[in-house]
Amino acid sequence: MFYESNKKVNHARFKPQTFALLNRSRKAGIGYSQCVLRPKTTEEVSRILSFCNEHRIAVCPQGGNTGLVGGSVPVFDEVVLSTSLMDQIISTNDTSGVLVCQAGCILEKLDTHLADHGLMMPLDLGAKRFLSSWRQCVKANGEVLDCLRYHLKHLFIGSEGTLGIVTKVAIQCPAKPKAQNVAFLGLESFQDVLKTMKKAKYDLGEILSSCELIDELSLDLVTSHLKLNSPISVYPFYMLIETQGSNNDHDEMKMNAFLESAMSDGLILDGTTTNEVSKMQSLWELRERITEGLTHDGYVFKYDISLPTKNFYSLVPAMKERLGDSAKRICGYGHLGDGNIHLNISVREFTQDILDKIEPFVYEFTSKLKGSISAEHGIGFRKPKYIHYSKSKESIALMKQLKAMMDPNGILNPYKVLPA
Amino acid sequence: MFYESNKKVNHARFKPQTFALLNRSRKAGIGYSQCVLRPKTTEEVSRILSFCNEHRIAVCPQGGNTGLVGGSVPVFDEVVLSTSLMDQIISTNDTSGVLVCQAGCILEKLDTHLADHGLMMPLDLGAKRFLSSWRQCVKANGEVLDCLRYHLKHLFIGSEGTLGIVTKVAIQCPAKPKAQNVAFLGLESFQDVLKTMKKAKYDLGEILSSCELIDELSLDLVTSHLKLNSPISVYPFYMLIETQGSNNDHDEMKMNAFLESAMSDGLILDGTTTNEVSKMQSLWELRERITEGLTHDGYVFKYDISLPTKNFYSLVPAMKERLGDSAKRICGYGHLGDGNIHLNISVREFTQDILDKIEPFVYEFTSKLKGSISAEHGIGFRKPKYIHYSKSKESIALMKQLKAMMDPNGILNPYKVLPA
Repeated sequence: MFYESNKKVNHARFKPQTFALLNRSRKAGIGYSQCVLRPKTTEEVSRILSFCNEHRIAVCPQGGNTGLVGGSVPVFDEVVLSTSLMDQIISTNDTSGVLVCQAGCILEKLDTHLADHGLMMPLDLGAKRFLSSWRQCVKANGEVLDCLRYHLKHLFIGSEGTLGIVTKVAIQCPAKPKAQNVAFLGLESFQDVLKTMKKAKYDLGEILSSCELIDELSLDLVTSHLKLNSPISVYPFYMLIETQGSNNDHDEMKMNAFLESAMSDGLILDGTTTNEVSKMQSLWELRERITEGLTHDGYVFKYDISLPTKNFYSLVPAMKERLGDSAKRICGYGHLGDGNIHLNISVREFTQDILDKIEPFVYEFTSKLKGSISAEHGIGFRKPKYIHYSKSKESIALMKQLKAMMDPNGILNPYKVLPA
Repeated sequence: MFYESNKKVNHARFKPQTFALLNRSRKAGIGYSQCVLRPKTTEEVSRILSFCNEHRIAVCPQGGNTGLVGGSVPVFDEVVLSTSLMDQIISTNDTSGVLVCQAGCILEKLDTHLADHGLMMPLDLGAKRFLSSWRQCVKANGEVLDCLRYHLKHLFIGSEGTLGIVTKVAIQCPAKPKAQNVAFLGLESFQDVLKTMKKAKYDLGEILSSCELIDELSLDLVTSHLKLNSPISVYPFYMLIETQGSNNDHDEMKMNAFLESAMSDGLILDGTTTNEVSKMQSLWELRERITEGLTHDGYVFKYDISLPTKNFYSLVPAMKERLGDSAKRICGYGHLGDGNIHLNISVREFTQDILDKIEPFVYEFTSKLKGSISAEHGIGFRKPKYIHYSKSKESIALMKQLKAMMDPNGILNPYKVLPA
């Protein structure tokens, strides 16, 4: 049942098809594992890790796709350690806005709970992600760490379960906004998108809560495959701009002034704005269901890339030029605020030939523009061999030192993040 | 000229008077050091550290009191490595708001520069501090690290120069607010302060930019010693509330509605509000010059403590009860938003007897309430022996492992942060 961790396993013997299979198995939460453990307490996590560390059993920590800590897919037959049952809310402070909960809590549950306290999850600009800091974490050897100076809490956020398992988090939650507005805009060029974003930051200031880019072929995915309706006609680019504030009259005035001015400047060709809950949801679906639309489009190569704002979109035309007719659809969408773009390339069927055209080109291109791969979903299993495109060898060496220090037997999430 | 780092040095042979002397020398920037180096580039920092590491020479990194990286005072005759000449602004992106600069830049220079771009430094709620991430850092052995996954950038922020020297930082800057309002309020009790803060978060929402607490004896320091004028009469507690936004009419309406409602609820006894620049400055001086006022009050024991919001102020009455007449003044002020309180105890002159009454009591008290010592100014030299009050032994062990990994010869900022 258990798999003995073997650092010498050769990644190369896995064919790309295997990756696809792993991706598909993500929903089920199990790769080739035959054992899933669902502890309920930090103490149980500690005992599991202590046992696994002693017996050199590889562990794949899994927070679930909707959990506080990023999910992860086993590569071989690692023991899956799921935090899905660790979903207790420990405390909520109405005054300070600090929520303390177990790390397996799902966002929806927290949102509902916080609403009763007049609070909301602190999602950062443009991304449905949030900032938190952990309160408790279990090391590979089972040792429980309570809180640390040296801001080690951040260390674990980017580590994708390779350094330790977070069991308890504290989240600073802002007041639930009393007003919300969403605008959906059509634009002619990426230059206009950039200008509109800059203007939105200036005009909407403190109430700007999201600024998303969707290109023509990304929107087409949800309108053609999922039959969603776009409120405006077809444009090369779309933006979804959301505001959140404490006074709806004020927010509407700001939003309307911004839109009028952007239209008269010729930045926006068409647009719609609303503060009706159901209409706002429909507009958000156009952005949030793109991933679902992609599943109807054939085999898809997905890349999650961070690029400087001015070059945010440049990868899409570059890829179109490179692949020409061999790709079915090349599209991009993402969070303009933090320069995080989702590049998707759909093809009729997977071929090694097309993969070779895409990789390592996509990594070289990103590296040249000083971007970073795997901004949102992490490096995971597929990309360790490409990490050198965005990290220097000194940085990778330090990451390896850290890994060796925190998890000397290499039991936690093996084959992930770091190159062999 | 150089001091050979010796980890066996015994802290105990230093009398409290020595600490006072070190504190006094902070302004000059030099303790007993006879050598201050002021590199201008990352390359120079790298060469200095490489040399010092090879020859086992202790280094005290110093960012200056107004620099981006916290200042630090040498304990013996460490070589002072000052980043004060590393004050070049490297790039400013108007669209993304990202500023990249050398780590020795002072806030004032950055603020002036950013204003030309319609941007400002991102100060967090209530504290004149800001969030940044480093782009370049030099390890103890001189190796240059460019950027890291594993969010190591945060690692260095809390480490006070004991793990490496940050040479270049990137800061995400928000748009400069078009409107600003400041209110100065008088309140009867700490309970009312908490209720008012909660109300301010709810009513002012996204425009609330500062929420400061000043107690009666803290304000008295600036009105009596510095002859500043308070706009209202004497109350047990004062709050300074600041808003920043993009529309002054909207912000004034929100502020006035908040104040009227808080007054009619009986939370606020008196208050004044303004958006005139000179008047706002005068109100801020009442808070910001408390430290200066303290220097006229005799020998002062200063503690910088993080406590849960509801117990934010409890240390002050506890200390008053414990010390009685032996203290001249016991007062507290600080950032309500993040629970960071400055506790000050002034006495006619330093005696070991009074120090023994204060310590370790202050640490025990903080630990019991699950607070943390040295929230803002760091642990530095004085407090390593008390770190166990807020950190578990597992956490301290991990910090020591990290230190050993990053700086195996222990040349960086010795005798600081970690207990011997």
